[in-house]
Amino acid sequence: MTDPCARITITRVRDGVRTPVADAAAVEAPLEIRLQERPFAVIMRTPGADRQLVTGFLLAERLVRSLDDLATIEHCTDGTGQDDSDREHIIRVVLDERAASRALTLLESRRDVMANSACGVCGRSTLESMRDGLAPLQARPIVKASMLASLPERLRARQPLFETTGGLHAAGVFDLQGELVTAAEDVGRHNAVDKVTGTLLLQDRLPAAASVLCVSGRTSYEIVQKAWCAGIPVVASVSAPSSLAVSLAGEAGIALIGFVRDGGLNIYTGSSLVE
Amino acid sequence: MTDPCARITITRVRDGVRTPVADAAAVEAPLEIRLQERPFAVIMRTPGADRQLVTGFLLAERLVRSLDDLATIEHCTDGTGQDDSDREHIIRVVLDERAASRALTLLESRRDVMANSACGVCGRSTLESMRDGLAPLQARPIVKASMLASLPERLRARQPLFETTGGLHAAGVFDLQGELVTAAEDVGRHNAVDKVTGTLLLQDRLPAAASVLCVSGRTSYEIVQKAWCAGIPVVASVSAPSSLAVSLAGEAGIALIGFVRDGGLNIYTGSSLVE
Repeated sequence: MTDPCARITITRVRDGVRTPVADAAAVEAPLEIRLQERPFAVIMRTPGADRQLVTGFLLAERLVRSLDDLATIEHCTDGTGQDDSDREHIIRVVLDERAASRALTLLESRRDVMANSACGVCGRSTLESMRDGLAPLQARPIVKASMLASLPERLRARQPLFETTGGLHAAGVFDLQGELVTAAEDVGRHNAVDKVTGTLLLQDRLPAAASVLCVSGRTSYEIVQKAWCAGIPVVASVSAPSSLAVSLAGEAGIALIGFVRDGGLNIYTGSSLVE
Repeated sequence: MTDPCARITITRVRDGVRTPVADAAAVEAPLEIRLQERPFAVIMRTPGADRQLVTGFLLAERLVRSLDDLATIEHCTDGTGQDDSDREHIIRVVLDERAASRALTLLESRRDVMANSACGVCGRSTLESMRDGLAPLQARPIVKASMLASLPERLRARQPLFETTGGLHAAGVFDLQGELVTAAEDVGRHNAVDKVTGTLLLQDRLPAAASVLCVSGRTSYEIVQKAWCAGIPVVASVSAPSSLAVSLAGEAGIALIGFVRDGGLNIYTGSSLVE
């Protein structure tokens, strides 16, 4: 298993004085996803919780909707031509028959629209396709502003790698009393969210209707979309949301909270859920 | 032209008191890239400097290498079935004949490897392909640590949208005396870099061998890869680099500087370039 921190030697410069010091950097390494025995995607991620990451990624891609959809999800065990260090950067996913057929239809419809796409929003040409089949969340939990205000500090307490490297994003799912359910770190903001939603899916705990997602960075529309797929009705962040995050949260019925710091916060959508 | 800031009304909560206030959010909107009249990619970006963004993106994708490669790059002017607001979210790129033929070969080689890729590192299956044809930079400029230490503040002075929204990343290219050459903001860190490298390419100023790239966030391997493609030999950031950013910078011959704050900084690679 690759260590999520790499030991490096750096030159520290303070007040004109140069000092070589031992330091740690957050590891960033490519993870290949093989879906139905075919290469599907490569994600740059911090090693650790790879199965959870891929599960959350496929959830947000709308290819997996529940635990039943997953027949197999595991690190590659095929030895041909690969050493251990390669295999731990490959995850093999086999979908249940019904999910596989649905996924095939979905992927083909995306390809029709965007046959030549090399990058971008996963081959989807429009934002419409991001919400295909997603209904507004029905859960209307009431959360206390004082509880929301405490979440970033609680999340920070569960960021061991950030303490070491200063270079990782974090995501945490909390219950309505502010108790941590699960947390994850990654060099990528989106990956950290995929790791926590994937953890919940693998524990068969979705939709997570009585919970709050807290993220360490900004809130883009993709973060809101991932919360929506996981059925999480409240999203809180220490920083700013984008315009599209605000409009998507409104459409999803998600309460979107930002700038949770210094005891205060801003409510962007769903203010009736916050008391 | 879409405003890069959206006016919104939020509920501000401070000390238990709720106040509705007018606020601004950084706009995030999809930009479609059409390459040789075919849909190629969709990028989520903050509107503004779209041509520069796409130019920098194609530079980092290795599809465009110099100004000569671009026959046309413009917002869509085709009116069929589209209103103005759609057209401003579409950029049409036509490559020069030689560049088009090279691009086709490159895209086909990526597709062979990763025929079913839906996402990830732009359809590239290995990091090797990220550096295809990239030679280590020969430029060895000497920069002063005191100049590097001043860059984040100079960059911040050129972030009008950040001041308004608190939610944007920035990238700036500076000369070796610390004078700003060009700067850009975006909800995406990578986009901000693409906007500044694209600006330089469109001005026919690449490789930018006597310059420094300063970014507001963390340094991932993609940031270093984009600097490499633009021939920029020094990359500085206020935050941490990832492990892969450090190793790629070493390979590229790029001096990588992090945690530029409070007058100090850390040198990760290329310490002989910093005095």
